[in-house]
Amino acid sequence: MTDINERDIAVFEAGIKLGALYHQFVGTPISTDTIDGLERIIEDSIGVQPHVRSVSVSIDREMVEKKQNPKFKYCELEGRMLHVSLQVLYKNIIAHVELVYDEALDYPMMSIKKIEKM
Amino acid sequence: MTDINERDIAVFEAGIKLGALYHQFVGTPISTDTIDGLERIIEDSIGVQPHVRSVSVSIDREMVEKKQNPKFKYCELEGRMLHVSLQVLYKNIIAHVELVYDEALDYPMMSIKKIEKM
Amino acid sequence: MTDINERDIAVFEAGIKLGALYHQFVGTPISTDTIDGLERIIEDSIGVQPHVRSVSVSIDREMVEKKQNPKFKYCELEGRMLHVSLQVLYKNIIAHVELVYDEALDYPMMSIKKIEKM
Amino acid sequence: MTDINERDIAVFEAGIKLGALYHQFVGTPISTDTIDGLERIIEDSIGVQPHVRSVSVSIDREMVEKKQNPKFKYCELEGRMLHVSLQVLYKNIIAHVELVYDEALDYPMMSIKKIEKM
Repeated sequence: MTDINERDIAVFEAGIKLGALYHQFVGTPISTDTIDGLERIIEDSIGVQPHVRSVSVSIDREMVEKKQNPKFKYCELEGRMLHVSLQVLYKNIIAHVELVYDEALDYPMMSIKKIEKM
Repeated sequence: MTDINERDIAVFEAGIKLGALYHQFVGTPISTDTIDGLERIIEDSIGVQPHVRSVSVSIDREMVEKKQNPKFKYCELEGRMLHVSLQVLYKNIIAHVELVYDEALDYPMMSIKKIEKM
Repeated sequence: MTDINERDIAVFEAGIKLGALYHQFVGTPISTDTIDGLERIIEDSIGVQPHVRSVSVSIDREMVEKKQNPKFKYCELEGRMLHVSLQVLYKNIIAHVELVYDEALDYPMMSIKKIEKM
Repeated sequence: MTDINERDIAVFEAGIKLGALYHQFVGTPISTDTIDGLERIIEDSIGVQPHVRSVSVSIDREMVEKKQNPKFKYCELEGRMLHVSLQVLYKNIIAHVELVYDEALDYPMMSIKKIEKM
C-alpha cells in the first residue's frame, strides 16, 4: 500500500488519546459534586499531550446519580458515563473523534467522525 | 489477640485511600499548567470515599518541570512527585497518614503520623 | 493515645495493598479465557510489594460471563468481580484482610478479618 | 476530504489499543521475577479487544533491574520499559504499530510501522 501519511498519523494519534483517557480515569471515585472538576481535569490532562487541538469531556450526571452507592454516596467513573469529543491536529490534518456510550450495544464506542484539511 | 477495634479500622481505611489514590492517578499526563487542577481533583476524588475527614495533595512542581519532556512539554504523574496528608475518621478515632517521597530510599513512603481520639 | 505500634502498621500496610490492587487493575479488559492469567498476575504484582505474606485473588467467572459484551466477547474487570484474601506480615504481626463483593450493599467491601501474633 | 475508510479505522483502532495498554498497566508493581507473567497478561488483555490480530509485549529486563528499589526489591512498570508490537485487522486492512522507548527523545514513542491489505 501507499506509505504512511499525515492522515494516518492524525487518526492514530486520536485513537491513542481516547484509549489513554479511558484507561487512566475509569475507576476514579466520583460523586455528583465532583463531576465538573473531573471533566475539566480529564480535558486538561489529555490536552497536554502531543497534537491535541481540543478536547471536551462530559460525564453523564444521571448515570452517576443512579450508580452512587446509597450508603456511601459515591461511585466510580465508568466508560459508559463518558462522552468525549476530541480533535487532533497533525500537520494540516484534523481528525475529529468521539467516545460515546452506545446503548444498543451496551458499549462505550470510540469512532472517527470527520477528517479534514485545515 | 484482642478483637478488631476502631483504631485498626481507622488505620486500615487510611491505608486503602493512599493505595487507591496512588494507583488511580500515577501515569496521568501532567504539565506545570495542570498541577493545581490535578491536586484539587485528586483531593476531591479521595474525599468522596468513606471515612475521609480531610485530604491535602501537593505535587512537586520542580520535579514536574525537570521531568517535562523538552519536545512535548509534559510528563506523567509519578509517585515520587506526590505529597499527601490524609485524615480518616472512623467512629471517634482519627488516623493521620502521609505519602512523602523518601529521597534516601528513593521511595514514595506511606506512613502513619498520629492516631488520636476525637 | 499510645504510640503507633506494629499492629497499626500491619493493618495500614494491608489497606495500602488492597487499595493499590483495586485501582491498578480495575478496568483491565478481560474474557473468560484470561481470568486465570489475570488472577495470577494480580497476585504476583501485589506479592512483590513490601510485607505481603500471601495473597490470593479470584475473579467471579459467572459475573464475567454475564458482563461480556455479546458482540465483542469481553468486558472489563470490575471491583465487584474481585475476591481477594491477603496477609501482611509486619515484624511479628499478621494482618488478614479481604476484599469481597457485598451484595446487600452492592459494594466491593474491604475488611480486616483477623490480626494475630506469629 | 474523502469519507472515513477502512484504513482510517484500522489505524485508529491500533492507536486506541496502545493508549489503553499504556495507561492500564503503567504503575503495576514489578520485579524481575514477574516480568514474564506481566508480559503475557498484557498481551492477553489487549488481545481480547476488538480487531486485535496479534500483540507482542516485552519489558526491558535491564531497566527493571536497575530501577528495582534496593531495599524493597521491586519497582513499577514505566512506559519506557515497554516494547509493544501490535497488529490490528479491520476488514481487510492490517495496521502494524509499535510502542518503543526513544532514547534520544527520552519518550515512549508510539508509531505506525506499516499498513497493508490482507
